[in-house]
Amino acid sequence: MPIYDISLPITPNLPTWPGEDKVQLTQTSSIKEGDLANVTHVSMGVHTGTHIDAPDHFLGNGVGVDQIPLDLLIGPVTVLHFPACEIITADMLRAAEIPTQAKRLLFKTRNSKYWAEGEIEFQGDFVALNPDAAQYLVQRGVEVVGVDYLSVAPFDDPVPTHKILLQANVLVIEGLDLSEVPPGDYALYCLPLKIAGADGAPARAVLIG
Amino acid sequence: MPIYDISLPITPNLPTWPGEDKVQLTQTSSIKEGDLANVTHVSMGVHTGTHIDAPDHFLGNGVGVDQIPLDLLIGPVTVLHFPACEIITADMLRAAEIPTQAKRLLFKTRNSKYWAEGEIEFQGDFVALNPDAAQYLVQRGVEVVGVDYLSVAPFDDPVPTHKILLQANVLVIEGLDLSEVPPGDYALYCLPLKIAGADGAPARAVLIG
Repeated sequence: MPIYDISLPITPNLPTWPGEDKVQLTQTSSIKEGDLANVTHVSMGVHTGTHIDAPDHFLGNGVGVDQIPLDLLIGPVTVLHFPACEIITADMLRAAEIPTQAKRLLFKTRNSKYWAEGEIEFQGDFVALNPDAAQYLVQRGVEVVGVDYLSVAPFDDPVPTHKILLQANVLVIEGLDLSEVPPGDYALYCLPLKIAGADGAPARAVLIG
Repeated sequence: MPIYDISLPITPNLPTWPGEDKVQLTQTSSIKEGDLANVTHVSMGVHTGTHIDAPDHFLGNGVGVDQIPLDLLIGPVTVLHFPACEIITADMLRAAEIPTQAKRLLFKTRNSKYWAEGEIEFQGDFVALNPDAAQYLVQRGVEVVGVDYLSVAPFDDPVPTHKILLQANVLVIEGLDLSEVPPGDYALYCLPLKIAGADGAPARAVLIG
């Protein structure tokens, strides 16, 4: 079965949230300069690229990314496609006829084109979920929500959507590249770094199926 | 089926290779101080904790961790237990009667006790594979080798074991915590960060089964 890598490459060009530092990659040991091995050092915010939000990120409750149960991050997932919208609402989700048993949903939107096209500037007009969409997903018992830009919430209103999801223990995956993935059902494996107590962590995420 | 998390927690206390900086976690945004969200920044070597070595690490050939095929990192794996040895040799591997079809092998040794006990000092006397063991694994067609300390090679002779494995395109996973894992057969999911062109990357690794 094909494996889709839905993770963003981590490079110094990766767009970061306004005010956040860019990724820094530094070579600290070099074979060409006589060292035994090449060694790189990475410096970045934990919400860089493809990443997980821990509850502590917006709730300030001390629940870190290392406390997220791994069985949430592994299992059946449905990729939904909303190709032509500016924001995802509860009404749009009702109309989408999401399978009743779906516990993990990834939202493919026009955002994925930014990654496919190698856009390096931050895009403030990304598609996100408005608060009523978040509330609808909580009521349906959805446990994992993934989006294809750097925030699940609209740029100009970041708090409500995040809080509704995180307070309901819905896992939020941000910064996915779904450009190559047809809508449908897959197995998700999304493994964030186990950074002790952190409000998030960069992750590698794949779809199989 | 149970999921074993065989990844080390990333903390400022994590032992690092002599000469390498410790992990730094810095809070760059704080709800308590009036910011909208908590945000942490991480700074570390890419060979920190549980991680993958890319061929470029010891070969200097430019083959980075983002070029490692994901199907190597996902699939059946066998955990072998060598509880009472100081180094793993080809003779010991021959005697271990490794299943003929085994393509992925993880070596559980006394090293895992360091992680179970929370040892924070680097341990130079860790158990590793000597070059003839590496050569034996290559000849058998093994494709993934994982170890439970920070290097697959002995501390005082790091180059040969690494070169033999990496030149044969054997994937090397280092810094696993196998203390809770009984020897036997599992499914491995080891997903390193997709750091473009880097000589390695920190990873989250789990065993299922």
